[in-house]
Amino acid sequence: MKPIQAIVVTAIAAISLGGAMLSLAAEDSYDSTSVFGGNLPPGYRDWKLISVAHEEGKLNDIRAILGNDIAVKAYREGKLPFPDGAIIARIAWSYVPSEENNRVFGRAQSFVAGAPTNVQFMVKNSSEYASTGGWGYTQFSGGKSTHVDVQACYSCHVPVKDRDFLFTRYSP
Amino acid sequence: MKPIQAIVVTAIAAISLGGAMLSLAAEDSYDSTSVFGGNLPPGYRDWKLISVAHEEGKLNDIRAILGNDIAVKAYREGKLPFPDGAIIARIAWSYVPSEENNRVFGRAQSFVAGAPTNVQFMVKNSSEYASTGGWGYTQFSGGKSTHVDVQACYSCHVPVKDRDFLFTRYSP
Repeated sequence: MKPIQAIVVTAIAAISLGGAMLSLAAEDSYDSTSVFGGNLPPGYRDWKLISVAHEEGKLNDIRAILGNDIAVKAYREGKLPFPDGAIIARIAWSYVPSEENNRVFGRAQSFVAGAPTNVQFMVKNSSEYASTGGWGYTQFSGGKSTHVDVQACYSCHVPVKDRDFLFTRYSP
Repeated sequence: MKPIQAIVVTAIAAISLGGAMLSLAAEDSYDSTSVFGGNLPPGYRDWKLISVAHEEGKLNDIRAILGNDIAVKAYREGKLPFPDGAIIARIAWSYVPSEENNRVFGRAQSFVAGAPTNVQFMVKNSSEYASTGGWGYTQFSGGKSTHVDVQACYSCHVPVKDRDFLFTRYSP
């Protein structure tokens, strides 16, 4: 086939597929509980630390963001977009004052991690999760996969599209 | 030497050394900058996460507590006292609101890690750091070892002597 013919055929295919592709992207294109086959990725609790944060409001948690080796390497090298295989884990615990620490400091100033709340993951697979920016989103509570609206996850992350949809910055 | 003689000699030695030992224990018995030979322990930033915390007041930081393999194993197994060789790193960053995150949440609720403040370590060596409960204390700022009053560190940790002087609990 000559190049010009190939282009025409490709264009026709794209037009005919256009409707289906758009509708796929607009809906919940995969179930969050299907990510990792519904299982926690082995060893995630041993991954390296990316950063930490505290969320007030309804969440009221304190959290750590860990990454597998691919993710941490990309963060440290400032590599964008992140390569396929990168996984980021956000572990959260309830945000509780520490009376024990406060007694030592002599004032109420210390907040620590209480009971675990949930663990969320972003996993990069440009083709499998194309409908949500190349990242798959999933959540676990008590070790069990729980349904989340992946399109809602994606929408929230769009404002940081320039950083490959990652809010968290690496903390040295 | 017969056993009874050995005991007498040991007792006399202990009595004669008693004064010196007490004065050693009461003062800054080692310089914090001598711990690890004044260098950051290699690879500490890759260590596993123990927990996270936030300190208000003058500190106003958000922090992660990491441990080397010996320390994390002891934490996970609930092993007390911690074995020699255990090292715990407390990394702190300034506590800053995230305008970027707040825009997405639609309210001021998100606090993240800003610039690094300092890194503190506890290293277990029952004999070398006997004067401070078997733990050596040290601190680094900008990668450089900085002097801290190790007896003051120790005094603050005495209230949690039953947990081998460790405030931080492991967060699953």
